[in-house]
Amino acid sequence: MSYPDDLREAVDRHLETIHFSAPDDSTAGLDEAMRYSLLAGGKRIRPVLCLATAISLGDQIDAYLGMAAAIEMVHTYSLVHDDLPAMDDDDLRRGQPTSHIKYGEAVAILAGDGLFAEAVRVMASIETDPSRVLEAVQLVTSATGVDGMVGGQYVDVTAVDLDAEALRSLHNLKTGRLIRVSVESALALGGLPVPEREPHRRFASELGILFQIVDDILDVTGTDVVLGKPQGSDERHGKVTYVSLYGLDEARRLASESHQQALAALNEVDGDIEYLRRIADYIYLREQ
Amino acid sequence: MSYPDDLREAVDRHLETIHFSAPDDSTAGLDEAMRYSLLAGGKRIRPVLCLATAISLGDQIDAYLGMAAAIEMVHTYSLVHDDLPAMDDDDLRRGQPTSHIKYGEAVAILAGDGLFAEAVRVMASIETDPSRVLEAVQLVTSATGVDGMVGGQYVDVTAVDLDAEALRSLHNLKTGRLIRVSVESALALGGLPVPEREPHRRFASELGILFQIVDDILDVTGTDVVLGKPQGSDERHGKVTYVSLYGLDEARRLASESHQQALAALNEVDGDIEYLRRIADYIYLREQ
Repeated sequence: MSYPDDLREAVDRHLETIHFSAPDDSTAGLDEAMRYSLLAGGKRIRPVLCLATAISLGDQIDAYLGMAAAIEMVHTYSLVHDDLPAMDDDDLRRGQPTSHIKYGEAVAILAGDGLFAEAVRVMASIETDPSRVLEAVQLVTSATGVDGMVGGQYVDVTAVDLDAEALRSLHNLKTGRLIRVSVESALALGGLPVPEREPHRRFASELGILFQIVDDILDVTGTDVVLGKPQGSDERHGKVTYVSLYGLDEARRLASESHQQALAALNEVDGDIEYLRRIADYIYLREQ
Repeated sequence: MSYPDDLREAVDRHLETIHFSAPDDSTAGLDEAMRYSLLAGGKRIRPVLCLATAISLGDQIDAYLGMAAAIEMVHTYSLVHDDLPAMDDDDLRRGQPTSHIKYGEAVAILAGDGLFAEAVRVMASIETDPSRVLEAVQLVTSATGVDGMVGGQYVDVTAVDLDAEALRSLHNLKTGRLIRVSVESALALGGLPVPEREPHRRFASELGILFQIVDDILDVTGTDVVLGKPQGSDERHGKVTYVSLYGLDEARRLASESHQQALAALNEVDGDIEYLRRIADYIYLREQ
């Protein structure tokens, strides 16, 4: 089965409805810059994971659309800041000019800042049991902060000569934690008792690793179109990757192993895992 | 009576205890950059306002230290990003090199991002009635986003030829809302019923206006030491201020009027308003 495009379309439809200020407001230009990056398309893997997790809990997706949107906003904010000249200095993202190329650096910084603030505001406004919402906010901000995405980007821009252990740690912070929290925030919102979350959590953890290995492979083997960024850009930036560290063949074996472990964890989930499996398959197979 | 330094010291002591990563972590350098800006001193007006509001509710300050710290972290994050070369391009802040001068631009952007994420995490972890905490998170992120601090900075860096109305709107977003929410988040955390919040809210709103008028006056009349930034920097940046718009005498009259209105609102608060009054007096009198 293929990628769950019905969930992706539900995410896209919901994101389209979000406006951060009125058209005649003094901040209308900031709203435009934020929506430019947020609505740039893509597979929406993180929010789709969130919705697929809701389905695995037997819930309707509607109550999870706010959480899914918030996670995509956090992800978009990280891309906008990572692309900045002082960071990765990328001019293109999904074939389009990056935020600072289109709107200038000041607006790009503020568009990222705004997306994060609005993401938390959207999350905190979800109307269900406040203790569940609060746990989800804790999980997402923890995955975003120093012991998460921001910390991972810090290691990425400052570290030199990473070994395998440090590489895994970096990717766990920078990419893995937000992918995991896409699943875990849905578990919190759905009120699944903590002891019952273990299979989902192992699945999500493995999926984060799989995602990064395949990303590194694609940087070497993929085309710009599949990749959404210039092929070989990691190599040119002198970054340590699974491929530079282990070679292409071993990286592919690690990806296969990781995919199998994700599916094994998924089989222990008590619920409809079809959508989650299709996401895992998609992430694994986009290599080819 | 003078500024409540006992509350400022309580804030400083609490901030000192906050570490964002372990000393031997790969993110220890990010922790250092975040703490460098967070612990740079200052009057801590926003967190002190939060604690003084707790006292006016008859509460002990201990339960409000997390909220106070989070608000100061949000404020610090905004200063770090506003100082960036792409924004106001300031080299000094409170007589010390700004974050990007000391740590480079990439780390400064990430230090700001990290402070914001950790601020929300700290807030969301406050142990009291979850619905109160959630309301405080909503208030703070709403005051921080497009219809608040980030939106205000956007207008500040992009707008030209502001009139009086637009200037008030800009300052309301950029400065006023965070000052107001320093009071309002404490009211939410303390569980004060919404209809009883009105006098506090009018006080806080007036205080935000007063703060900005006095800031604009000090930019013309103050010394670098009092101001914590190079005197005349607004003028050099070609910014519209209360002084450039109304002249120094009229700005002083507006400050006095605003101070009186803040005190009038405060007199309607049912509780110990001594600390809140001392903050209002301090903000007004630092002009001289």
